[in-house]
Amino acid sequence: MKALVYHGPGKKSWEEVPDAAIQEPTDVVVRVVTTTICGTDLHILHGDVAAVTDGRILGHEAVGTVTEVGDAVTVFQAGDRVLVPAITKCGRCEYCQRGMPSHCQTVGGIGWIFGHLIDGTQAETVRVPYADTSLYAVPDSVTNEQAIFLADSLPTGYEVGVLAGQVRPGDTVAVVGVGPVGLSSVLTAGLWGASKVIAIDTNKFRLDKALEFGATDAVEAGPGTVAEVIALTDGLGVDVSIEAVGYPETLLTTASLVRPGGFIANIGVHGTPVELPMQDMWIQNVTLTMGLVDTVSIPTLLKMVASGRIPAEKMGTHSFTFDEMDEAYDVFKNAAANSALKVVIRPA
Amino acid sequence: MKALVYHGPGKKSWEEVPDAAIQEPTDVVVRVVTTTICGTDLHILHGDVAAVTDGRILGHEAVGTVTEVGDAVTVFQAGDRVLVPAITKCGRCEYCQRGMPSHCQTVGGIGWIFGHLIDGTQAETVRVPYADTSLYAVPDSVTNEQAIFLADSLPTGYEVGVLAGQVRPGDTVAVVGVGPVGLSSVLTAGLWGASKVIAIDTNKFRLDKALEFGATDAVEAGPGTVAEVIALTDGLGVDVSIEAVGYPETLLTTASLVRPGGFIANIGVHGTPVELPMQDMWIQNVTLTMGLVDTVSIPTLLKMVASGRIPAEKMGTHSFTFDEMDEAYDVFKNAAANSALKVVIRPA
Amino acid sequence: MKALVYHGPGKKSWEEVPDAAIQEPTDVVVRVVTTTICGTDLHILHGDVAAVTDGRILGHEAVGTVTEVGDAVTVFQAGDRVLVPAITKCGRCEYCQRGMPSHCQTVGGIGWIFGHLIDGTQAETVRVPYADTSLYAVPDSVTNEQAIFLADSLPTGYEVGVLAGQVRPGDTVAVVGVGPVGLSSVLTAGLWGASKVIAIDTNKFRLDKALEFGATDAVEAGPGTVAEVIALTDGLGVDVSIEAVGYPETLLTTASLVRPGGFIANIGVHGTPVELPMQDMWIQNVTLTMGLVDTVSIPTLLKMVASGRIPAEKMGTHSFTFDEMDEAYDVFKNAAANSALKVVIRPA
Amino acid sequence: MKALVYHGPGKKSWEEVPDAAIQEPTDVVVRVVTTTICGTDLHILHGDVAAVTDGRILGHEAVGTVTEVGDAVTVFQAGDRVLVPAITKCGRCEYCQRGMPSHCQTVGGIGWIFGHLIDGTQAETVRVPYADTSLYAVPDSVTNEQAIFLADSLPTGYEVGVLAGQVRPGDTVAVVGVGPVGLSSVLTAGLWGASKVIAIDTNKFRLDKALEFGATDAVEAGPGTVAEVIALTDGLGVDVSIEAVGYPETLLTTASLVRPGGFIANIGVHGTPVELPMQDMWIQNVTLTMGLVDTVSIPTLLKMVASGRIPAEKMGTHSFTFDEMDEAYDVFKNAAANSALKVVIRPA
Repeated sequence: MKALVYHGPGKKSWEEVPDAAIQEPTDVVVRVVTTTICGTDLHILHGDVAAVTDGRILGHEAVGTVTEVGDAVTVFQAGDRVLVPAITKCGRCEYCQRGMPSHCQTVGGIGWIFGHLIDGTQAETVRVPYADTSLYAVPDSVTNEQAIFLADSLPTGYEVGVLAGQVRPGDTVAVVGVGPVGLSSVLTAGLWGASKVIAIDTNKFRLDKALEFGATDAVEAGPGTVAEVIALTDGLGVDVSIEAVGYPETLLTTASLVRPGGFIANIGVHGTPVELPMQDMWIQNVTLTMGLVDTVSIPTLLKMVASGRIPAEKMGTHSFTFDEMDEAYDVFKNAAANSALKVVIRPA
Repeated sequence: MKALVYHGPGKKSWEEVPDAAIQEPTDVVVRVVTTTICGTDLHILHGDVAAVTDGRILGHEAVGTVTEVGDAVTVFQAGDRVLVPAITKCGRCEYCQRGMPSHCQTVGGIGWIFGHLIDGTQAETVRVPYADTSLYAVPDSVTNEQAIFLADSLPTGYEVGVLAGQVRPGDTVAVVGVGPVGLSSVLTAGLWGASKVIAIDTNKFRLDKALEFGATDAVEAGPGTVAEVIALTDGLGVDVSIEAVGYPETLLTTASLVRPGGFIANIGVHGTPVELPMQDMWIQNVTLTMGLVDTVSIPTLLKMVASGRIPAEKMGTHSFTFDEMDEAYDVFKNAAANSALKVVIRPA
Repeated sequence: MKALVYHGPGKKSWEEVPDAAIQEPTDVVVRVVTTTICGTDLHILHGDVAAVTDGRILGHEAVGTVTEVGDAVTVFQAGDRVLVPAITKCGRCEYCQRGMPSHCQTVGGIGWIFGHLIDGTQAETVRVPYADTSLYAVPDSVTNEQAIFLADSLPTGYEVGVLAGQVRPGDTVAVVGVGPVGLSSVLTAGLWGASKVIAIDTNKFRLDKALEFGATDAVEAGPGTVAEVIALTDGLGVDVSIEAVGYPETLLTTASLVRPGGFIANIGVHGTPVELPMQDMWIQNVTLTMGLVDTVSIPTLLKMVASGRIPAEKMGTHSFTFDEMDEAYDVFKNAAANSALKVVIRPA
Repeated sequence: MKALVYHGPGKKSWEEVPDAAIQEPTDVVVRVVTTTICGTDLHILHGDVAAVTDGRILGHEAVGTVTEVGDAVTVFQAGDRVLVPAITKCGRCEYCQRGMPSHCQTVGGIGWIFGHLIDGTQAETVRVPYADTSLYAVPDSVTNEQAIFLADSLPTGYEVGVLAGQVRPGDTVAVVGVGPVGLSSVLTAGLWGASKVIAIDTNKFRLDKALEFGATDAVEAGPGTVAEVIALTDGLGVDVSIEAVGYPETLLTTASLVRPGGFIANIGVHGTPVELPMQDMWIQNVTLTMGLVDTVSIPTLLKMVASGRIPAEKMGTHSFTFDEMDEAYDVFKNAAANSALKVVIRPA
């Protein structure tokens, strides 16, 4: 089969590799019918993720069809249309049993293994370990182009932003950075009754998308951002402030927007320490959360997509075939300039 | 001033009485600009509520203007436009401090005192005890005709139905009986991300209203109701089943709709015991909740009305002046036949 | 091997049967080193549980040693000392994933299958399906005689009583009926900081045990029970009232003890409907919970037993060998008269 | 009367000042029978709290007797024995109504006003604003020497440590710094069923006290602390890690002890920023909490002291009379060297 193989920093190719195959009785093999690219894939290509080595197939998001099942698989069978989520769960370790497979102790201490510790989903076929507890059946009323965004970006914006930030009915929410993940927080804040969702970004296209996705206010990031956002509240700041960028400055801005007793939900992947003004913050009764997605909200999100409350398909702005994998990466790498959010990649 | 005075079972009159006046330093007097009638007022007129005696002014819902404030009142002043909720809270007893003023130990063991233990709101003016902790300022963006339904019916449907029933994103919700309170559950279930809201009633007008208020399905009550509702789910029943009628049969129907692990939220005011099939229910891991509204959700609901997410004004189907109080009662008493939900009553 | 086989109402025998064996790749076989008898086993012998048919091996509680593992088992291996809990979990259905395997849809709609839908644990060996997600390793610091009570009775008293009743620090708790399950609620109420635990029973031996197990007050059940218990509170009743008997009268007593806003946690297995005084209860803001144990609290309980905070071994008052199975049943059937709580049954 | 007056950095004197008196109808005056000194008082004397100006009476903890009540006071009367907590609550602002009076918007944006924005409790008498919602009656079964520690230190260790850190049954808890506040976390972690409480400090006396107060392990702080603590867990770290010192290094140590998915509860008062290793932490799914005490847990703590589960009196190691105020400060300033925890100060 063909797959996108990593060959060290800056190098990748869509090349011939052996087909995916069952290795353990709990595996299945899935033929990929839709995949996409994540910001993390770009980090890997920059050489930022040491665990990813030469020869690894990239990608951790897919929708596909089961083609083969291991002897111990009881839930899925050949022919099933399934969502392959970013996180693999053994379902039996302490972390999986408490709903936190992001730290599944069995699959590697961390639940993200596709395109990281094992071969990934930017390929014609992919082996899925612990399939019974990891895969999700896709209902007929949800399309591939909707489901693909439930593999990682939507659950990340929802779980690490909206759920960790404990958005509650009536709350005012700020989202700093409205790329695909920040937009996913915007799209899902309404599930918990946010009364106001304020999108903040430097990019006009993304701010327009945010308004289209349900934000009530869009604020162009600049020196007056904090004052502007606080003026949109009762003067005390927002209830929940979500960071979806991953830099010290954006986290500090996010923290500046929150009212006493509020939540700062960090989604951003950070590469450096952040100097937190604890001398001012300690007395504010705020909570700072952070983390990797668990993808355990997928059943809920599938229901909301099926019922039309979450228009997940809007996240896909550009389409490519497997053979156009390089162009897909190019467009996604310069997403803002290309007015792109996420790309949809299909066999042909 | 004039007020609607109860004179024993079946007897009431809109008659001249002394003006409301400050009695305690924590009181204010409010000039009523909008009031309405509650099903409980009809119960009182039937003689069902022994604590209400001859001479009592009825009513426990009002929007109005503060005209006088006691010496200890610090939050409100003459001229403020306020919502007088059904529940009075001392703000200092154990129940008030834990957010359950429905059982305020200071004002009478029960927080509902207007038109019950003290004179009520169907009057030109009303004395409001513990004003600082009981009244709510009405924002300019909320009209009297919206705010009036936040005095009792909307918080009841929301708190005793949606909150007690712990509706969560993706949940399927059934509402048995979609009069004003059941419709209030329908209107607010979306604040917690319900994916499906099934309205059940014998009355076609109410079912149409339910669909207009956000229900996804309307089921005409009859022998096949339970089967029909369960067929609308995955075959196991709804996550949250809300009773908004108050009869044994309707509670049993409500209980029959719920899946293992689900919630049965009783809002109905019952007059007789209910024989619960505990031999079948004990193993179902269900939770049955019940109770009087606390009205502590009013700040949240005001924000949602102000932001346009809850069209509270749709609850008012008929308007009357104070002088037409008798007609207002007649229409409300036969609400279903009159295609009425709630009535709006104003000075002139 | 030998096992206790049910032969229709009133009939059982400790007899020769085929050894337990692997049937599915997710199975293990366990050699039983400790088992016990549950009140449910007595119900079955009375013929009350239609699903149990002639030839079924009884019992759903065991500690033992793994002797054989299926091909798909990854967590356990031969030689492991394990706890076989009352509930079997597939770990992959919606109910298991949300922590409610009591209603595992895969193993039969109900998670209790040992000695019910499949052969049970009152045997020399037992086949355990879905072993990876169902079994618990027993730490060295926990004895067989402690662990055995974590298979069912302790988690039942804890989960269906203390957890469902939402005991919180400072709460006053009543436990109506202090047999093994009620005593398990007494033993574990302190984990959530109960300030007062009131045991209520007709049996003096059990009341003494309750005091020994951590109850602060013991009330002999009688006509004055409700008044007596309420006098032990601030006059409003207890925060959490737990029913551990299973009769209409005891549930009504339990409900009478609770203060407004409190919890009534039903653990009892009921055989008939219960006429609930909804005309009085609807306004009390109480919550009534009920259900089958999930056994998901076992890891927590194991830690508390290991740390010495829960003296689980005190639950075992009488010991028998497998050959004395009949005597064990006789003593347990007349537990109160025999000053018995639970029996411990071992190979020889 | 006499009181301890602040006269700028480094200067204080026990001197004659006018008696406390009613200013608002919601005030009471309390004659102080027991007070104490808090670490914050030392900060003020260092000149670290700009809002405290020359002439301010210090102190924010007292037990006393009501001597005078304002016209609007309904809950308390002259002669009542009361606890004056560190936090004053109006009871009517949004923050008070949601149980977060630490940020009461009415009394100054911050609920700590005694010895800060108004005169304090290290005095013969003190004026208490919003008395009805701020004071707590002390039950007969609780002594002055117990109650005084419920004014600030015990609720701080409990609320900002144990509650914010969401300690749950079976959890392993680390407390970094076991001065009076850290010890308060140790004392109360058992209310939520902690299975292991690890105290960490450089001071041997405090570590011994921690063991006496319920810690299961004591670790002398040093280069090997993190490894030593993690070895006391299953190798992944503690569930809840509490910081009770207030320096960057101690917060970083605290953060290093926590397992994925755990809580870092900061109690320490910080004077400088803290460089948080977000490049390592973002993926750990940890939650960092911080804040000022609300003192809303006082009713719970009073019950637990009354029932004997919290030996609060052990916190008081040294006693002084009002005339010995200077000695009291000297001992407390060098608490560790003096084998002191908290001091108890009484009239004579």
